[in-house]
Amino acid sequence: MDTSPLILGLHHVAFAEGADATRFGLLTDLLGLTVAHVEDAGDFVERMAPLGGRCWLQGLQATGDGVVSRSIEQRGEGFHHLAFAVRDVAETMARLSERGVRFVDAEPRAGGMGTLIAFAHPASFGGVLVEFVQED
Amino acid sequence: MDTSPLILGLHHVAFAEGADATRFGLLTDLLGLTVAHVEDAGDFVERMAPLGGRCWLQGLQATGDGVVSRSIEQRGEGFHHLAFAVRDVAETMARLSERGVRFVDAEPRAGGMGTLIAFAHPASFGGVLVEFVQED
Repeated sequence: MDTSPLILGLHHVAFAEGADATRFGLLTDLLGLTVAHVEDAGDFVERMAPLGGRCWLQGLQATGDGVVSRSIEQRGEGFHHLAFAVRDVAETMARLSERGVRFVDAEPRAGGMGTLIAFAHPASFGGVLVEFVQED
Repeated sequence: MDTSPLILGLHHVAFAEGADATRFGLLTDLLGLTVAHVEDAGDFVERMAPLGGRCWLQGLQATGDGVVSRSIEQRGEGFHHLAFAVRDVAETMARLSERGVRFVDAEPRAGGMGTLIAFAHPASFGGVLVEFVQED
């Protein structure tokens, strides 16, 4: 049984921090999680630790000026976004747009680990930044 | 294979809001999630929506003066905590205490849906409030 008609489940929970912070390192070290994937996006480094099932803990560490450092300036370090797995990001965007949801991304774009992603505007979800992820 | 030697997986991601806010309602409505469990804790109402696997989205709505309303005063509405499923909360507390983790709860206590829970001090996880949950 699907979780909902729209999403397959939670894909990851993301936390943002600056270059000197140790939040993600503390979480993975103390909880005994394995950092299974590291990807350098240029102005931030993305780290993924599996949490069981389809779900990951994501660390976004700002290493230069960019989306993550700007988010930290505006909202501080800590929780960054919730990402949900969907079958088809483009279809998800179309269905949610019909219901008035605004998207940061005009169309699906490449995400980490070979995924296709799109971010909704946080104003559409009561201030929560929500990402949709399609695995190949 | 277990996710880690310590935790079984992510149990829930919790968001806090005031009595008039609609964040959890927007998330569940737009994502097509079902609110499968509602529990009135006196000064807040806890709502649980399954996200697939063992994982839930939790809404904590402050309805009076208490832990949730105080958290909102101090940190604002939005992300509240991450909860991880463990086999034995008391053993988890003992193992993490040995590594210097401080706990808000001196010992396991009753949580929602018949669980046994304990909250670690956010300072121990770089500012992230972490809960451990033992089912039945």
